[in-house]
Amino acid sequence: MLFRRGLSLYAAVKSSGSTVKWINLEPIIRSNSSMASAINEKFGLPKRYGAGEKSVWVEYIQLAAEYKPAVNLGQGFPDYHAPEHVTKALSEIPTSDNPLLNQYTRGFGHPRLVQNLSKVYSPLVGREIDPFNEILVTSGAYEALFSAILGHVDEGDEVIVIEPFFDCYDYMIKSAGGIPKFIALQPKANGDNVTSADWVLDEKELASLFNSKTKMIILNTPHNPLGKAFTQKELELIADLCKKHNVLCLSDEVYEWMVYEPVKHIRIATFPGMWERTITIGSAGKTFSVTGWKTGWAYAHAPLMRNLQVVHQNCVYTCCTPVQEAVARSFEYELARINSPDCYFYSLARELLPKRDFLVKTLRENGFKPTLPEAGYFIIADWTNLTNKIDLSAEPDKYKDYKFTKKLAKEAGLLAIPPTAFYSEEHKHLGENFARFCFIKKDENLVLAEKLLKEWNAKKK
Amino acid sequence: MLFRRGLSLYAAVKSSGSTVKWINLEPIIRSNSSMASAINEKFGLPKRYGAGEKSVWVEYIQLAAEYKPAVNLGQGFPDYHAPEHVTKALSEIPTSDNPLLNQYTRGFGHPRLVQNLSKVYSPLVGREIDPFNEILVTSGAYEALFSAILGHVDEGDEVIVIEPFFDCYDYMIKSAGGIPKFIALQPKANGDNVTSADWVLDEKELASLFNSKTKMIILNTPHNPLGKAFTQKELELIADLCKKHNVLCLSDEVYEWMVYEPVKHIRIATFPGMWERTITIGSAGKTFSVTGWKTGWAYAHAPLMRNLQVVHQNCVYTCCTPVQEAVARSFEYELARINSPDCYFYSLARELLPKRDFLVKTLRENGFKPTLPEAGYFIIADWTNLTNKIDLSAEPDKYKDYKFTKKLAKEAGLLAIPPTAFYSEEHKHLGENFARFCFIKKDENLVLAEKLLKEWNAKKK
Repeated sequence: MLFRRGLSLYAAVKSSGSTVKWINLEPIIRSNSSMASAINEKFGLPKRYGAGEKSVWVEYIQLAAEYKPAVNLGQGFPDYHAPEHVTKALSEIPTSDNPLLNQYTRGFGHPRLVQNLSKVYSPLVGREIDPFNEILVTSGAYEALFSAILGHVDEGDEVIVIEPFFDCYDYMIKSAGGIPKFIALQPKANGDNVTSADWVLDEKELASLFNSKTKMIILNTPHNPLGKAFTQKELELIADLCKKHNVLCLSDEVYEWMVYEPVKHIRIATFPGMWERTITIGSAGKTFSVTGWKTGWAYAHAPLMRNLQVVHQNCVYTCCTPVQEAVARSFEYELARINSPDCYFYSLARELLPKRDFLVKTLRENGFKPTLPEAGYFIIADWTNLTNKIDLSAEPDKYKDYKFTKKLAKEAGLLAIPPTAFYSEEHKHLGENFARFCFIKKDENLVLAEKLLKEWNAKKK
Repeated sequence: MLFRRGLSLYAAVKSSGSTVKWINLEPIIRSNSSMASAINEKFGLPKRYGAGEKSVWVEYIQLAAEYKPAVNLGQGFPDYHAPEHVTKALSEIPTSDNPLLNQYTRGFGHPRLVQNLSKVYSPLVGREIDPFNEILVTSGAYEALFSAILGHVDEGDEVIVIEPFFDCYDYMIKSAGGIPKFIALQPKANGDNVTSADWVLDEKELASLFNSKTKMIILNTPHNPLGKAFTQKELELIADLCKKHNVLCLSDEVYEWMVYEPVKHIRIATFPGMWERTITIGSAGKTFSVTGWKTGWAYAHAPLMRNLQVVHQNCVYTCCTPVQEAVARSFEYELARINSPDCYFYSLARELLPKRDFLVKTLRENGFKPTLPEAGYFIIADWTNLTNKIDLSAEPDKYKDYKFTKKLAKEAGLLAIPPTAFYSEEHKHLGENFARFCFIKKDENLVLAEKLLKEWNAKKK
């Protein structure tokens, strides 16, 4: 019998009588190192995954576990209760009279869920969405992105990615053999009252990225982490370029309901000639404040969806039935009050607005220059005014924002995310002066964040 | 504004005053067909997915929806209630005091679940499994297979696949750029009392498939659809070939708890020198009779798991938190009674045994020659003795088992699955005489199946 403890491998060897001795095999294995390295080399990661990029999430969740910061404004999820009707729906299903609600359902989406998704989105896109051919339910919006990218991007295809970007876009494109082409949103203003609308694309630069090899552009509106809601005019430019160059638009709209008045969320799939070339992505986790339910979807013209179905069928095949049933029932509940301000689609943004304003004010009062987000639940804040108060030299990271956020976690007990994780290698300098804060947190934690920042600042004077 | 109805696209056009007229755009679009086909060609499926193989599951679930057979013995899931403690666990979590159980958890597996998986499997493999580096939780065992295959198989690598096989193996290998090499289990006996142990591999043929290009062999024990539990001797042969040629073994063991006395499930990962080259896969859906929960896992030596983590991080990132928590609690419940015969790990097989025997008897009495399965919940039955009673000429399918199972669904109201779906193109003839029946169904449905088969048989005389 063999037994591993730590890095060492032990073998049970019978010595005198029935006594068992454990022998450490590690030195024996090491001495036969040619065999060991032959195994290692052969069982490496396939080329398409590069070196297996380290995820900022894995690193910062580890950081949180290690330093236990008092307030975690890092990962984007609410730390308070989801709507009662939503959690109640899931709690009723597993023990219901219908045992089939715990068994496999339709692979491309539980019928009750795709039917409700069609009811929600058909009026919003101004066409009847076929629930069985134009919607795919996925293991979170993440798997919808994966299915859309892997289902269309082939070896050598170019994909335009707007920076800062949700980091998985880049890895997914590369694993498909595609080539990401990056363009950064940059602030046209730099005063104390910058809003996410001030972050814009250079139109000429954008146009110059489109060519005959371009397969897709990835749009994220409302935008993570800037909170930008792309305007009609900005979307028209993108739509026109997509049509001119026959390019797909993958529109990640998971923050669609978190848009602050008077700004409106605009869907590029509704633009003339865009339905045929747009894949739109949504999320139950974001819609109903249950990120852990990992249920997302894509909707698009049927011929595009067919490609997503093939990828989905190849990697996950079908999604969790009770959770899909619960999301379907939650949509039914909201559809029944769709014209009331109580509908969660509208009340969520109202609930978030004071949290946003509180955190923006707190950051401003403590030396940051935050960009006021018009949408989403993140704030990007410039921390360069704090530079002379802090010593980052002890932090071994390559980029300043990693150094800063780690320092902040250790010294102030406040976790934020370094935005260079959302930039390509060539543009990382554009994100180095910022930190990303999430404000979908209970008020007491935002108040605690204010206290911690004040105390930290006071110590620095 | 545009609106699609059926296959036609309509545009709203203002005519006199405020009256809106709908114009069908379809003829206009069709006339501009060069544009339409340019779009279609560019937005096709990437080469790695071939033509997007049609899934037998999609086809037969559609068939079930269309013909509504009275008894569905097709897809492998129970049509009765899962253990009460399991469904109760899930129903308690979403509305519990801890709102974080509805939010994102650790990407590679919810801590409470990986810790319990380590407790379950460490004694079974005779080594302490590191919960955080040697276990990955996935969106069903399906995604575990995907992560294991995509995480190791590179362009041109050969993978040995034992037929009949769970159909996704083939697609996953090909989408990774790998080349499946097939070898069929074949019955060495052909009498009335064939058991799954009679289905064996030709040892010389198996050895001949191993070469320097071989990256992996996929083992499925207990085997779907045969119900074969590979013996110590058979596994030793495979292990020896893996070690001799430095090949990985992907061991799909999702039916590990459904093994009928006196047969035992044997884990190839426990063989000398195999831990370093074996990835073992399990399933909460199969373990706890909740296939719709879509929670699976892989466990292996840490350097192998790292490759699976990268793939998982690239496609799904993290799995459903409340479901993982419920599975963790379910394992805790069973671990507390692991030495009692009431433990579901043992009681499930006892519960299934009379169902197996009843369906085997029913099939025998109605002209089939079933293989008695030693494990799993499927029966493969030869239907050639019924050939002269039925006219398959009207069924347009290419393979006889498709014709037969469709005829059976339409005429007898009983759904079974055609096993040629589990063979490579070159070996499909080996599956044509069989049909696959699932027996994890409530007794009343098995009794109804008997009645339907008897009536159908009587009509044929």
